[in-house]
Amino acid sequence: MKALVYEGPGRKSLQERPVPTIEAPGDAIVKVTKTTICGTDLHILKGDVPTCTPGRVLGHEGVGVVEEAGTGVTQFGKGDRVLISCISSCGKCDYCRRGMYSHCTTGGWILGNTIDGTQAEYVRIPHADTSLYHIPEGADEEALVMLSDILPTGFECGVLNGKVQPGGTVAIVGAGPIGLAALLTAQFYSPAEIVMVDLDANRLEVAKGFGATRTVMAGGEEAKRLILESTTGRGVDTAIEAVGIPATFELCQEIVAPGGVIANIGVHGVKADLHLERLWSHNISITTRLVDTVTTPMLLKTVQANRIDPGRLITHRFGLGRILDAYDTFSRAADTKALKVIIEAADG
Amino acid sequence: MKALVYEGPGRKSLQERPVPTIEAPGDAIVKVTKTTICGTDLHILKGDVPTCTPGRVLGHEGVGVVEEAGTGVTQFGKGDRVLISCISSCGKCDYCRRGMYSHCTTGGWILGNTIDGTQAEYVRIPHADTSLYHIPEGADEEALVMLSDILPTGFECGVLNGKVQPGGTVAIVGAGPIGLAALLTAQFYSPAEIVMVDLDANRLEVAKGFGATRTVMAGGEEAKRLILESTTGRGVDTAIEAVGIPATFELCQEIVAPGGVIANIGVHGVKADLHLERLWSHNISITTRLVDTVTTPMLLKTVQANRIDPGRLITHRFGLGRILDAYDTFSRAADTKALKVIIEAADG
Amino acid sequence: MKALVYEGPGRKSLQERPVPTIEAPGDAIVKVTKTTICGTDLHILKGDVPTCTPGRVLGHEGVGVVEEAGTGVTQFGKGDRVLISCISSCGKCDYCRRGMYSHCTTGGWILGNTIDGTQAEYVRIPHADTSLYHIPEGADEEALVMLSDILPTGFECGVLNGKVQPGGTVAIVGAGPIGLAALLTAQFYSPAEIVMVDLDANRLEVAKGFGATRTVMAGGEEAKRLILESTTGRGVDTAIEAVGIPATFELCQEIVAPGGVIANIGVHGVKADLHLERLWSHNISITTRLVDTVTTPMLLKTVQANRIDPGRLITHRFGLGRILDAYDTFSRAADTKALKVIIEAADG
Amino acid sequence: MKALVYEGPGRKSLQERPVPTIEAPGDAIVKVTKTTICGTDLHILKGDVPTCTPGRVLGHEGVGVVEEAGTGVTQFGKGDRVLISCISSCGKCDYCRRGMYSHCTTGGWILGNTIDGTQAEYVRIPHADTSLYHIPEGADEEALVMLSDILPTGFECGVLNGKVQPGGTVAIVGAGPIGLAALLTAQFYSPAEIVMVDLDANRLEVAKGFGATRTVMAGGEEAKRLILESTTGRGVDTAIEAVGIPATFELCQEIVAPGGVIANIGVHGVKADLHLERLWSHNISITTRLVDTVTTPMLLKTVQANRIDPGRLITHRFGLGRILDAYDTFSRAADTKALKVIIEAADG
Repeated sequence: MKALVYEGPGRKSLQERPVPTIEAPGDAIVKVTKTTICGTDLHILKGDVPTCTPGRVLGHEGVGVVEEAGTGVTQFGKGDRVLISCISSCGKCDYCRRGMYSHCTTGGWILGNTIDGTQAEYVRIPHADTSLYHIPEGADEEALVMLSDILPTGFECGVLNGKVQPGGTVAIVGAGPIGLAALLTAQFYSPAEIVMVDLDANRLEVAKGFGATRTVMAGGEEAKRLILESTTGRGVDTAIEAVGIPATFELCQEIVAPGGVIANIGVHGVKADLHLERLWSHNISITTRLVDTVTTPMLLKTVQANRIDPGRLITHRFGLGRILDAYDTFSRAADTKALKVIIEAADG
Repeated sequence: MKALVYEGPGRKSLQERPVPTIEAPGDAIVKVTKTTICGTDLHILKGDVPTCTPGRVLGHEGVGVVEEAGTGVTQFGKGDRVLISCISSCGKCDYCRRGMYSHCTTGGWILGNTIDGTQAEYVRIPHADTSLYHIPEGADEEALVMLSDILPTGFECGVLNGKVQPGGTVAIVGAGPIGLAALLTAQFYSPAEIVMVDLDANRLEVAKGFGATRTVMAGGEEAKRLILESTTGRGVDTAIEAVGIPATFELCQEIVAPGGVIANIGVHGVKADLHLERLWSHNISITTRLVDTVTTPMLLKTVQANRIDPGRLITHRFGLGRILDAYDTFSRAADTKALKVIIEAADG
Repeated sequence: MKALVYEGPGRKSLQERPVPTIEAPGDAIVKVTKTTICGTDLHILKGDVPTCTPGRVLGHEGVGVVEEAGTGVTQFGKGDRVLISCISSCGKCDYCRRGMYSHCTTGGWILGNTIDGTQAEYVRIPHADTSLYHIPEGADEEALVMLSDILPTGFECGVLNGKVQPGGTVAIVGAGPIGLAALLTAQFYSPAEIVMVDLDANRLEVAKGFGATRTVMAGGEEAKRLILESTTGRGVDTAIEAVGIPATFELCQEIVAPGGVIANIGVHGVKADLHLERLWSHNISITTRLVDTVTTPMLLKTVQANRIDPGRLITHRFGLGRILDAYDTFSRAADTKALKVIIEAADG
Repeated sequence: MKALVYEGPGRKSLQERPVPTIEAPGDAIVKVTKTTICGTDLHILKGDVPTCTPGRVLGHEGVGVVEEAGTGVTQFGKGDRVLISCISSCGKCDYCRRGMYSHCTTGGWILGNTIDGTQAEYVRIPHADTSLYHIPEGADEEALVMLSDILPTGFECGVLNGKVQPGGTVAIVGAGPIGLAALLTAQFYSPAEIVMVDLDANRLEVAKGFGATRTVMAGGEEAKRLILESTTGRGVDTAIEAVGIPATFELCQEIVAPGGVIANIGVHGVKADLHLERLWSHNISITTRLVDTVTTPMLLKTVQANRIDPGRLITHRFGLGRILDAYDTFSRAADTKALKVIIEAADG
């Protein structure tokens, strides 16, 4: 089969690889019909993710069709159309039973990281019963690719952790795909204001179309000034960090109101300053989280009920044979205006 | 009347001052029967609290008897025995109605800070109806002095924010009065383990008597090693910071388990490093809070039901005439083994 | 001034009455610009509310302008435009401090019940600081009349108590004004389905326009059958009772899914059967509540942000001089298709 | 092997039966070392549980040693000492993933009901990975038998659903084993008062020893009068129904304070009156629940930490050969003062 293989920092190629096979009773083999590329894949390619070693098939998102199910699999069978979760969950360990699938002792984020992933014609899914989801009849499968990772990430790490409320005020710092996913799902809770902060005019324009009530094309002091101005100096109830650098995390500290939450989504490579000398008395919370995908069933229902259209995040489409072009397009997002790119892998 | 007056950094004296009078319809004048000294009073004396200016009568804790009530006061009258909250709350502003009394727009921590306080024979209490509490018949009034500040602080900022749970594991970093108040109130929720961390052998000994299941007389790497060891490497569900310096806040980051909470109580003078490069994916929360005293009614009930004896925090007693000695004893706690010192102000 | 006076069961009249005056320091006198009639007013007129005695000016909803404020009032002054809450709250008693304003020991639902109400040119509002709300600049005041009672009632008793969630399923039994208020506010939380149940075709038609995803014009077994059918036999996550009779409460028991909530809004005059022989093991909750109006600030923000338009509930308008016609129209809702009728009382 | 077999209403016998064998990859065969008898077993014997048909081995509680594990079992192996949950949970279905194990689509309460149970030398446990728990080194295994059902039932259905809080007031109606389990676990949350209501003097005496702050040996109006008296007329924050008949459920309605919770544990055979004509405005919740055993890991930790000693519920011990005597003793509890009786099944 064809597969996109990581070959070490800066190198990747589309290779011919053997179709994966069942290794444990709980495994399923899924024929991947559609997959996509995540910002994390770019991190891997930069060499930032040491757990991912050369030779690895990348990708942790996608939809497909079950080709074969292990003897221990009870919820899925050959031919079932499925959504693949970016997080593998055994459903049995302490963490899984508490809903922290991201910390599953034999799962978590392993696809396209410590085991081969979804940017291929077939993928082996461990703990299939608790890591796959049935695709409802009549669903837009392409849109559901957004439910593998980006939508639950924005929702769980940003919106739920951020305690977005009807009538509340939200600032989302970073209008990339993940910030936009937070923007889409924040609207489940009808906040009064959602301010989107970025330096890219195109992405802010997209954000307006997606429901931002206000955009701020600035960073640092200027962004702080504009946001405080628009909240009569009080700051926002929820500040969502969707970039992953100290500067944006510090901005969140400047704009969060007393009693508010800073919900971090960004993947940080270095430490940040925490201004406890000011914040110690401000009754705030700061939350971190790797997506658990525990809300996938809820998100599936909202998509089926047309409460949200995650397909709006898709800007480009490629066949698997052109996945290198897809990477190129996705990695030059400022020029190409790419948000999420769909890779059509196998016929389904 | 006699009153302890702040005269600028490093200077204080016991002076004769006029008895305060009603200034607004919601005020009450309380004859102070017992008060105490807080670590914050020492901060003021170091010059660390710029809002508190020379000439101020210090003190924000105490019990007493209502001497006079303004025309707008409906819940209290002359002769009522009352507990004074360290936080004044109007009960009307947005913050008060959300239970964030600490951020009351016309109150908050003002006693002994921006208005004259309780280390005197009489004190004026603004917003009396929502800043005083009736002392139940037969209560140990001396013990209730601990409910003005220290007990709700340990409970709200440490225990409630820290989501202490039956069967959970808790580490409290800092075994001073505030850490001990967190220790006492953490037991309301029956955690499996409460590890107390400090460098002072006496305070750790006290902590054992107060219910700590384990003590760690170490800091930094050594403390981290011992705590992780005792939690099979996983860390604690709740890490309570009760010191207020970067080193102890960093220790909390090292020992908190995935899914856990760092509940900050400490008053910080400088920023701290936040290791987002490690914690971003650990599903943790960090909380800050100035006590709101919103749990005072609950705490009063637990004291009345003998579920807790806050009087155990009291180590010394002085008359108001000897308050300078009391300050001396309290400020040399390592030598004197002082926790909380009671000042008997007026006859009640 | 003109006022609508209850004269005993079945009797009311528009009378000339003296303008009310300040009786306590916390009182305010409000010139009523717009008020409305509530289903509860009809209950009073039937003689169902013994606390309301003949001679009482009816009405507990409205907006107006502060004419005079007592000496203890700090948040409002003459000329302020205000929203009147149907619940008076002292902000000081145990219940108020826990957010249960409906049980305020000196307030609760007293307007137009145990003290004179808002269907008059002027009304005295006790506990003004915590029972009035500032009307934001530029607001649609007529629409805000819906925030005195009906909108917080549908939201607090139905939607919040019912734990409406993104992707969830909701049934609202009763499509009168209060059921429609629940329908409007349920959408704050983006449920997948909102089924509206009633026997009145017109009201169901209105419900569709207001966002119901499905309507069921049936009761009893037939309603049960249709609702279970549409939820693949499982039932709904939230069943909101908005009628107040045993039959509709029993329907809610038949359609609630395991793990779900029955949120009662209806005012019941008699007991109902609770089928514990079936429900004891179903992990359900049943909630009751008199509106506390604790969410009024949140609702004001959602209205100001155009997340909801409560003005859609208004079907008719009358001057105060024609309030008897307004009562007639409102009480014959099946014929007149009335939802809420606005009474324009005084010029504002 | 020896097994206690239900032979139809009123009839049971100790029989020789074949040792069970693995039927599905997720099964485990457990050698039962200790089991017990539940009130539900008596219900079955009365013919009240139609799902349980003649020929069934009874029993849904116990501890033992894994004899054999199916190929799909990953968490347990031969020789592991285990606690058996009364609820079988697949860990995969919608209900299990929401923590409602009692409603597991292929599990729930099946042991000793629809499949053979634990009152035997061996038992087959379906979904072993998510229905068994490792027994910690050094644990008192006899005491842990109380964690199969009765302790999580009292805790989840009574204490957690009842929102027991520090300083709160609790009434538990029914001082049988399940009421006493609620009493023991309610103390995790340090309520101010726990009033125990029963007509049996011995059980109330036991309750006092277990931590009840007050006992009421009365029912109906007299019980209501005494409880209201002791709460200054206000009623209790939490009323736990642990009997299962209309009279005790009605008592709970009479004694619950505004804002309180009625947490039903009792198994009801008939409907009850719900006094909505009084309660509709009282801001109360009524909850029902079949135990989910979702708190078993938490309870294990509290037992290991000596925060609770469930062994105190054990009054009698029998060998499996004398299980008919055990049934006799347990069923005549008023005479024998039996709470829980331990059956020693196999040597472990």
